[in-house]
Amino acid sequence: MSCEQRSSANIVLRCFLIHVRSVTCLLVLSTLITGSVLAQKRPRADSDYERPQAPAAPSLPAPLLQELNLIRDAALTDDYAYRQVAHLTENIGPRPVGSPQAQAAIEYVAGEMRKLGLEVRLEPVLARHWIRGAESAELVEYPGQAPGSTQKIVLTALGGNHPTPPEGMTAEVVVANSFADLDRLGRQNVAGKIVLFDVVFDRHKADNGYAGEAYEEAVVYRALGAKRAAELGAVGSLVRSVGGADYRLPHTGGSKAAEIPAGAVTSEDADLIAHLASQGKVRMHVILTSQTAEEVSTFNVIGDLKGSEHPEQVVIVSGHLDSWDLGTGAIDDAAGVAVALETAQLMQQLHLRPKRTLRVIAWIDEENLGRGHVEYAKAHAAEIGQHVAAMESDLGASHPLGFRAKISAEAAARLQPVLEVLRPSGANLILLSSDSPEADIDPLAKQGVPAFGLLQDGRTYFNYHHTAADTLDKIVPQELRENATAMAVMGYALAAMPDPLPR
Amino acid sequence: MSCEQRSSANIVLRCFLIHVRSVTCLLVLSTLITGSVLAQKRPRADSDYERPQAPAAPSLPAPLLQELNLIRDAALTDDYAYRQVAHLTENIGPRPVGSPQAQAAIEYVAGEMRKLGLEVRLEPVLARHWIRGAESAELVEYPGQAPGSTQKIVLTALGGNHPTPPEGMTAEVVVANSFADLDRLGRQNVAGKIVLFDVVFDRHKADNGYAGEAYEEAVVYRALGAKRAAELGAVGSLVRSVGGADYRLPHTGGSKAAEIPAGAVTSEDADLIAHLASQGKVRMHVILTSQTAEEVSTFNVIGDLKGSEHPEQVVIVSGHLDSWDLGTGAIDDAAGVAVALETAQLMQQLHLRPKRTLRVIAWIDEENLGRGHVEYAKAHAAEIGQHVAAMESDLGASHPLGFRAKISAEAAARLQPVLEVLRPSGANLILLSSDSPEADIDPLAKQGVPAFGLLQDGRTYFNYHHTAADTLDKIVPQELRENATAMAVMGYALAAMPDPLPR
Repeated sequence: MSCEQRSSANIVLRCFLIHVRSVTCLLVLSTLITGSVLAQKRPRADSDYERPQAPAAPSLPAPLLQELNLIRDAALTDDYAYRQVAHLTENIGPRPVGSPQAQAAIEYVAGEMRKLGLEVRLEPVLARHWIRGAESAELVEYPGQAPGSTQKIVLTALGGNHPTPPEGMTAEVVVANSFADLDRLGRQNVAGKIVLFDVVFDRHKADNGYAGEAYEEAVVYRALGAKRAAELGAVGSLVRSVGGADYRLPHTGGSKAAEIPAGAVTSEDADLIAHLASQGKVRMHVILTSQTAEEVSTFNVIGDLKGSEHPEQVVIVSGHLDSWDLGTGAIDDAAGVAVALETAQLMQQLHLRPKRTLRVIAWIDEENLGRGHVEYAKAHAAEIGQHVAAMESDLGASHPLGFRAKISAEAAARLQPVLEVLRPSGANLILLSSDSPEADIDPLAKQGVPAFGLLQDGRTYFNYHHTAADTLDKIVPQELRENATAMAVMGYALAAMPDPLPR
Repeated sequence: MSCEQRSSANIVLRCFLIHVRSVTCLLVLSTLITGSVLAQKRPRADSDYERPQAPAAPSLPAPLLQELNLIRDAALTDDYAYRQVAHLTENIGPRPVGSPQAQAAIEYVAGEMRKLGLEVRLEPVLARHWIRGAESAELVEYPGQAPGSTQKIVLTALGGNHPTPPEGMTAEVVVANSFADLDRLGRQNVAGKIVLFDVVFDRHKADNGYAGEAYEEAVVYRALGAKRAAELGAVGSLVRSVGGADYRLPHTGGSKAAEIPAGAVTSEDADLIAHLASQGKVRMHVILTSQTAEEVSTFNVIGDLKGSEHPEQVVIVSGHLDSWDLGTGAIDDAAGVAVALETAQLMQQLHLRPKRTLRVIAWIDEENLGRGHVEYAKAHAAEIGQHVAAMESDLGASHPLGFRAKISAEAAARLQPVLEVLRPSGANLILLSSDSPEADIDPLAKQGVPAFGLLQDGRTYFNYHHTAADTLDKIVPQELRENATAMAVMGYALAAMPDPLPR
């Protein structure tokens, strides 16, 4: 991985090798970006003594700082966001695109936005409607098999799965540990077989703050495995679940369309198959039915708190409303929607109206083909230049460390007073990213809109992500409040600062 | 909980409030039982100065100590036990009583024993043959329900479940937090409904070494809930899974026969149902089919290494061979069988033959009705007086702290030199217990046979116990070796000591 060293006339930044999702190179800015703490972290060099003087600390008007403090203190004691997550996950439940629950969630969130006094629109999105079917598997031949027995394999279909026949299919399993390994095996060893991509999610990376890198290393096999296996004549593709826990829990997720079934087995089942296959022939019977129905009409839910001075200038706060179908989508991503709603709720509660428009968006279709954000970018193409900033929370609801942001170093420096307001509740780091920090704001980020993702403690996120265990109990109410605090304080600041953030 | 303070002329023991399984009151003996370390752990009192003199440290013959050291060092570097667990769990798989896998495991273990030069017998046991069927559930009515939707509930049938019709049943759910709560609800609120016993497994206790107590507090609802609910006219009984993890994993286990279906929902699903039921009416559709087939003929597998001087005197080392059907029974209890086999393997490897008979037993039916140990006690009734000691490992395969033992304080003191041998690998505590430390040796313990259970680090045991996630990866090879070390060193010592352990 390459990492670029940057400097400017004013500040020297050190570049840390941190991957988060699609972020390839990040620069850490602390609230003490002007140098002292960063300098303490490495041995002094002669050049340190030649550094230019730190610039004057940026400032915000005192009344705005006072408002930000009010928002922070109110957010840290409010339970509105938690009640939204509870309703979305427990009363409504899983919200896959095209489901009655997704539609109920759209209507519910629109209703909440209206209660908060926002101008609400449902913006139409035409989405793929993929429906999970039966899913089961068993090993029917393996070394040491007890006469008359088979072994159950726990798995789940990946989104977009090409179904098996209803009665399933049976084939030998071949194990690949990488795409290079698959290529080495070649068509002669792969054709007619089920490929298992047995690539371990690196828990040590996740435990040490590199969860995104661990995810990226493994998720490529979930995303592309079926396509690559099909190219070599495989009849099915299975991936070791991408996640860090060991509770025989399969993780679903998107998979690039292929003409063969695509599933994920649990880490335990991947171990089992790999161990047995190393001893002899392993044959498996797999049922992975699913259905891709007619495209379905669905909606991004958008609520505006119109700006008092520049209503045409927009700051987005957002999360995505759809979820996978296995769990109830609490950390992915009812929490994101809830903290975005909480931002507007706090404006109402505190009678605050920023000079720019604060736009709350509950995105649809993030987990499927991402049509929600694609449609938004199309529909609002003419106004992108007026988008001052876009924020999304889509990395769970654990304690926030700060923000990942595709912004300039100058813009980051301008935000130091905001980070100071957030310091008591955490969330006072900015990691500069060269890519969009979150998927739904990617089209905006690509067009230069300053883009922010909440940066949560991600150590356990990929234990639950895309599984049946993504449920309400995974959210600690106080940590959710800290996330709401971060989004509300930063969102309001971006919408109320004297000047828009420089692009 | 009461805790008895005991003293003898020679030693003063402190009583610790530790519950492990059915052990009601335990006394801790360290290898420094004569006083110094224990005395350091509390403030000095006047009585400390009046203590009787410590007795002369017990001793063992030097050649025996040398043998025990040899066994320890060999056990700590050997992988025989791990290979046994791997074969039982991966090549054979789940081993519920009556399954082809259980039979294959019986034959495999008998073969291994023969390879080790043991005299092998399969002792017949007639056992209940309970077979899991279909299991699924969904909430069909609940507050806030999206039109046209239901919510999936993850559950599993408890052993001995009285089946629903194949098409399932639908009823309202009533939540009880205790048996007292159930009684308060009374027949008028329970009749015709499904009772959910929502009793939380106390993770804090488990994390602090009181896993057994946490288990006992909750498992009574799994064991007796259906019977109690049926007495008040309930049509079904569900228990919150008894275990400490939060990965939407249902835990099965035995349940006292009742005329209504009995299942376990995951902790997440228990939360969901309880939250929704607190808001309004919740109705659930449940399918929990299962079958109780003809009683099945099965076997305890018994292998004797005949004693050189007193072949009629027997020391048992054991684990249980059957498992639940959801996982592959690695920690419960292929590990126990494997460390018992390893004990014999080490005797063979080191050319050691104790003066008493070392009897390796792979018990059957521990998870079902316990007929294996009942039959053994019947068949060997006339020889119980010649059983010098009985050991079982059935608390997983994590690092061993020592032993739980139903033995006299005098007997424990005699074992101090053995604990000293074990000190480098841990396992140098003895917790005295008033009840049998493990189920399979309970009939022997009740008749006065000194009974030992391996005492493992139990902090995560009940996360995996009786679930699909009880699989090979849960075993750390070096920790399994430490367990084999503890069983082999103690087992050989008991079989080779100059005099039998006093009863």
